[in-house]
Amino acid sequence: MSKSSKSSALHEQDGVSQSDITNAASIKSIKRKRKIQPTVEDLVSEILNGNITALSRAITLVESSNPKHLEKANAIIKQCLPYANASVRIGITGVPGVGKSTFIEAFGLYLTSIEKKVAVLAVDPSSSLSKGSILGDKTRMEDLVKTNNAYIRPSPSGTSLGGVARKTRETIILCEAAGYETVIIETVGVGQSETAVHSMVDFFLLLKIAGAGDELQGIKRGIIEMADAIAINKADGDNLKAARLAKVEFNRALHLYPQKASNWQPKVTLCSALERQGIDDLWVLISEYIKHVKDNNYFEQNRTEQNKFWLLQTIEERLKSDFFNQKNIKEALHTQLELIENGKTTPFVAAEYLLKLNSL
Amino acid sequence: MSKSSKSSALHEQDGVSQSDITNAASIKSIKRKRKIQPTVEDLVSEILNGNITALSRAITLVESSNPKHLEKANAIIKQCLPYANASVRIGITGVPGVGKSTFIEAFGLYLTSIEKKVAVLAVDPSSSLSKGSILGDKTRMEDLVKTNNAYIRPSPSGTSLGGVARKTRETIILCEAAGYETVIIETVGVGQSETAVHSMVDFFLLLKIAGAGDELQGIKRGIIEMADAIAINKADGDNLKAARLAKVEFNRALHLYPQKASNWQPKVTLCSALERQGIDDLWVLISEYIKHVKDNNYFEQNRTEQNKFWLLQTIEERLKSDFFNQKNIKEALHTQLELIENGKTTPFVAAEYLLKLNSL
Repeated sequence: MSKSSKSSALHEQDGVSQSDITNAASIKSIKRKRKIQPTVEDLVSEILNGNITALSRAITLVESSNPKHLEKANAIIKQCLPYANASVRIGITGVPGVGKSTFIEAFGLYLTSIEKKVAVLAVDPSSSLSKGSILGDKTRMEDLVKTNNAYIRPSPSGTSLGGVARKTRETIILCEAAGYETVIIETVGVGQSETAVHSMVDFFLLLKIAGAGDELQGIKRGIIEMADAIAINKADGDNLKAARLAKVEFNRALHLYPQKASNWQPKVTLCSALERQGIDDLWVLISEYIKHVKDNNYFEQNRTEQNKFWLLQTIEERLKSDFFNQKNIKEALHTQLELIENGKTTPFVAAEYLLKLNSL
Repeated sequence: MSKSSKSSALHEQDGVSQSDITNAASIKSIKRKRKIQPTVEDLVSEILNGNITALSRAITLVESSNPKHLEKANAIIKQCLPYANASVRIGITGVPGVGKSTFIEAFGLYLTSIEKKVAVLAVDPSSSLSKGSILGDKTRMEDLVKTNNAYIRPSPSGTSLGGVARKTRETIILCEAAGYETVIIETVGVGQSETAVHSMVDFFLLLKIAGAGDELQGIKRGIIEMADAIAINKADGDNLKAARLAKVEFNRALHLYPQKASNWQPKVTLCSALERQGIDDLWVLISEYIKHVKDNNYFEQNRTEQNKFWLLQTIEERLKSDFFNQKNIKEALHTQLELIENGKTTPFVAAEYLLKLNSL
């Protein structure tokens, strides 16, 4: 147990993990409990009651790098597991400028309006609490943040995508146990993080806007291949005509891709997050998709495959971090890289040297 | 030392590592030496003399999974290193049907005709000596195989791309020390192996044929991005017109890609490997490229970056194989995967369990 709650990774980050809907009395009660370090059982039962503060604390344990916290987090996850899995997990990506935050806010508000509980998570390896690129989204989702039945959690910090992704993947379980039946995971439309998010969701949505003739250029082909739907946002006012054209073009392009394992033909829709138009249509589309993949069993198969993938990913990530974080390896690696720069060794001889150092 | 040369990984695979140009007398002399297990020094000095049998034996050591052989291989590579690096490394990819073997044969014959020594290696993780998908290429390159100054080695076998790639990467060093100044590494145009090959060559060539309007569809964008040149093969007879059209189209497409780090603008050429047309033009193109990147220093920078990449890759590969090849881990992994299939555990709890087992 840590001596001071201030220096503990469990110390509450004001404005980050707390939500406006937690009332003062419950904060007081939780704070009282904190002094006596809530047990795993306490946290689990509070999470199952839908207590947001308990949920946030459990997520903080998941995000901690303290081995004791990790152990506690694993115990909580294990107990939450039987109550999880009953949600729809939706990945949303799009490059900066497509209006991702506005869209997620409109989508989240729509879902709560039809009596669904929605959790919004993020995978952004470049963000950290200090830099806070996704943390900003929370302040931008002003209406959603005030809404009952919505829980927003910024991206965990971390330099490795594997680590960030693992934490988000575990957080999904906790949110589901807390009764959030729709879990949205957002990511920025650049780099490798889409693949990580794609491997933890049931439905993958690509947000686009109609551009000046660049509908098909400059888009990462791999991301389009992953999409179960493309929503063309900002389809309003003067943009509407261009958006309609883009829809036709994308629909044509999508037919060139090979058949998906889910047997689902990806769709293109129009929406205006700003005017809150087309959001309901998109939800109908997602519901159709879920029915389709539940009927043909792909939903279950996909989740099982994802779980196997994450087992192997987690192990690989840990083997690497355990190796490269050793002080003597760090120093020796530095030297070996210099030798490589000067052409004094081969990568393979250097690797052997470092691996031998590890086994000493 | 192994008791029987038959059961040793060094046992000669007839028709694979031997070449027709090794005469009976030298085979006899090598076989005599083998009985007294040639030392590292023997092998190195024979390799530096350009002795093909010694080169093949050293490569067999590199490909072996016996730790003793690995140690010997590393010692040989280390001693060969000062004599290596003086070659041009060319990666060639293309989907089945573009005439890759015919092209490499024509290209290799052209290079030997201008007094160059050429080694042809391969990276094909799906092949193994028994399945032999690339081994077949050797019999298809009938003329090249009989040519002095050409050395053909099939893809090392192995299930992991990392392992296969490492072996090929080390084999390049040995071939260079044996005086092969052009090293061609071929791979099939599907999957991840292009990235591995791209990270071990100076010049990356994509082979294509003109198709029925599918010039831009169905090509992996990532592979086009890697290409320093696209050669449109089978540009002969009735195909010539379509090939010329394809050239225009590809040239246009290549201009849409971002500037390469090498500052080189990728080119499109036509050739007919069957009629041995356009091969000399391609060599002129490659020579221009090499001059360009040597002048702007990219050649050296790129090789250094590749070496650093391979250092990290080799370590990661070994950490994984050391972990997953343990008997108790294999069994426990099997059980944990079953638990995941039945929804009885999470990937993260299972990973923790396996990692703990490892550290016991």
